[in-house]
Amino acid sequence: MMRKISVGIIGFGTIGSGVVKILQDNGDIIKKRLGVIVEVTKIADLDITTDRGIKVNPEILTTDAQEVINHPEVNVIVELIGGYEPARSLILQAINAGKHVVTANKALLAKHGSEIFSISEDQQVSIGFEAAVGGAIPIIRAIRESFVANKIYSIEGIVNGTANYILSKMSDEHCSFDLALKEAQEKGFAEADPTFDIEGIDSAHKIAILSQLAYGTSVKFEDITIQGISGVTIHDIECAREFGYRVKLLAISKFDGDFVDIRIHPAMIPQSNPMANVNGVLNAVRVCDDLMEENILIGHGAGSLPTGSAVIADIIEIARDILSGSKLRVPPHSFQNSEIKTIPILNIESIDSEYFLRFSVLDNPGVLSRISGILGQHSIGIQSVIQKGRCNEGRGVPLIMMTHRANEKNIQLALREIDELEVVCEKPNFIRVEK
Amino acid sequence: MMRKISVGIIGFGTIGSGVVKILQDNGDIIKKRLGVIVEVTKIADLDITTDRGIKVNPEILTTDAQEVINHPEVNVIVELIGGYEPARSLILQAINAGKHVVTANKALLAKHGSEIFSISEDQQVSIGFEAAVGGAIPIIRAIRESFVANKIYSIEGIVNGTANYILSKMSDEHCSFDLALKEAQEKGFAEADPTFDIEGIDSAHKIAILSQLAYGTSVKFEDITIQGISGVTIHDIECAREFGYRVKLLAISKFDGDFVDIRIHPAMIPQSNPMANVNGVLNAVRVCDDLMEENILIGHGAGSLPTGSAVIADIIEIARDILSGSKLRVPPHSFQNSEIKTIPILNIESIDSEYFLRFSVLDNPGVLSRISGILGQHSIGIQSVIQKGRCNEGRGVPLIMMTHRANEKNIQLALREIDELEVVCEKPNFIRVEK
Repeated sequence: MMRKISVGIIGFGTIGSGVVKILQDNGDIIKKRLGVIVEVTKIADLDITTDRGIKVNPEILTTDAQEVINHPEVNVIVELIGGYEPARSLILQAINAGKHVVTANKALLAKHGSEIFSISEDQQVSIGFEAAVGGAIPIIRAIRESFVANKIYSIEGIVNGTANYILSKMSDEHCSFDLALKEAQEKGFAEADPTFDIEGIDSAHKIAILSQLAYGTSVKFEDITIQGISGVTIHDIECAREFGYRVKLLAISKFDGDFVDIRIHPAMIPQSNPMANVNGVLNAVRVCDDLMEENILIGHGAGSLPTGSAVIADIIEIARDILSGSKLRVPPHSFQNSEIKTIPILNIESIDSEYFLRFSVLDNPGVLSRISGILGQHSIGIQSVIQKGRCNEGRGVPLIMMTHRANEKNIQLALREIDELEVVCEKPNFIRVEK
Repeated sequence: MMRKISVGIIGFGTIGSGVVKILQDNGDIIKKRLGVIVEVTKIADLDITTDRGIKVNPEILTTDAQEVINHPEVNVIVELIGGYEPARSLILQAINAGKHVVTANKALLAKHGSEIFSISEDQQVSIGFEAAVGGAIPIIRAIRESFVANKIYSIEGIVNGTANYILSKMSDEHCSFDLALKEAQEKGFAEADPTFDIEGIDSAHKIAILSQLAYGTSVKFEDITIQGISGVTIHDIECAREFGYRVKLLAISKFDGDFVDIRIHPAMIPQSNPMANVNGVLNAVRVCDDLMEENILIGHGAGSLPTGSAVIADIIEIARDILSGSKLRVPPHSFQNSEIKTIPILNIESIDSEYFLRFSVLDNPGVLSRISGILGQHSIGIQSVIQKGRCNEGRGVPLIMMTHRANEKNIQLALREIDELEVVCEKPNFIRVEK
């Protein structure tokens, strides 16, 4: 009987040091559950001198990733350097060397997931990536192992803690986007260059991975519509509140049997929806299917220990396979390789949604009629209207509308036409409503 | 290579027919994920004539459970008759015959879980029971496989849909407990005898199971404090709202390293907590530990298809073990058998909590001072007070208090003393506050 599982780590940053710390501090409870110990045998990082606040035998540190991959004792390679290269090459090298792999690399899996899954299946090794989406939220395991008899038709996620922190702060403290971003950076919740988080790219990586698993499709990342939160104003958030909604950066994925509708954008969701109260750096994922209606999972989507705990759950899953002599219990892609289809991604212009529209207009008679006339010409029905304030010195007053279900292309055309009216003072803003 | 997994079902009621329906309707997607088909080979029920709305070959129906257990082809026995006997004997018989078992029987596992887990481990067969707690919510798998490096220190659950439906209805429609219960019965959300659901016994079964898995302990069911919702009034709910809380029937389990504090009672939780917005028949479970702070899982806790989907997830987990030649990958108890301790259950009198107190008092001078005096003598600090209305014709006016953190025994003693005051018109009511 094997007496330990040996782990090699490539990338000794925030998550890497979380993994090492957990294996040290919680080694006792892991052994009580797993039956054997999990030991870190080798760690590679370009920087092996900085103090990470944990005690590590200097002999296991190396600057050469090859030493980790080729270490004869190592059963599981944990890739935590992120990005496309050299992460992709190192993972493929490990797989081809017959090593199991655990990774938190969402960017890589969003673009090269199908390739990596397929090769790992050929080589009969496991690939764990629970930490790539939603940090401590066990959403990958839920889709691959719990919702397995279920025809999933939609996934909605608040999967970026930085964006959620900013929107929550704008909403709760009535502050501007810029101020909220600045504070997020000061608190370490946003990076110096926050583009990936606030422009929705990170969220897109995550929903691309979940869509692959949920529907058994590959996803062409470039076809995903991605809109971030930098255009959301405090006015939008306050109007949303008046209508009973909160604004969240949603990663949306829907499957109607023919097309996958995948998109990232700010969305208004009803305050009574439990996801509306997922605030700060918390993440949430809601899965809907034909059998259980909905399942919502909420938790910390980032951070050294939450993400580290997901990495270790994957290591332990692989350890159990090794100890029980089982190979490829669960296909990495969640579907059998031969069943993976390429389902086309729906063009955003084809979707239907309700819309929140915000105009800044001159307080002239007839303005409402001209705007609603243009909307009507594009088959856009109006659910409710709020017009407020008075015109002072030629500046616009806000005109807010909630539409009935309408077609995105029609909305785009109508807004372009309305934007050209001389009574409209600013570019019209819109937020899609998800119920 | 095995070409199918063969299932025998004992109990062809709501969940049993859900399982059969899902295997029929979603057999294609199961095969795409698992690689082989899952087939129902034999079904036992005392009633094999009633139409369940699904087509079943009459030859696979039997009134004799032995035919299911002893059928040579059957790999997995699914027990769905509920209750203690003959369920326990049938499960043990199946285990001893080397068959894997899936069950939704929470009452049985709450009392006899340790025995059943231990025997199934000796016999090297798996026992799946995801459906026993939280229906479609994958909480068992999350605790056994995802939170496995984590020192769990608390679990809080809204795990009874009937009770949650009644409390939600009282809260949202301002109706009485009796009216809400009546409607729940009419809609099929409550049984003719709703005792198990509204008196918290069903919730206690579920939290007992989760506690066993989370802390690696056996649980003496009789030591759990169980208080249902039949004493909750519309006044309590409305006062809760004024203080910014909602009233939920909570199943609580906390572990401080020495004692497990397990109890079921109505509790006030802040409206900003995502669990406060888990309404109607939805269930939720919140797990807190040292690594990921909190994880909340929300979903449908009952019903033919949601629960059936959890049963099938367990069948497929076992199927994967069979197909990959693996045995006992995950210990049923979540901990290695040798590591199971008996952790004592804390007496409710030892707990500390904040309390909501509701008195009905005569509108006399000095009443507030006498009541707060008694509370003070028992070291109970008052956070806020609301006194309302006027005394009409000798009837009491409500006096509402929120206390600081106080000891349960002191609260009980103080309330008994206050109850004896002649200015107090009704038995004082209290609800614990969970933050």
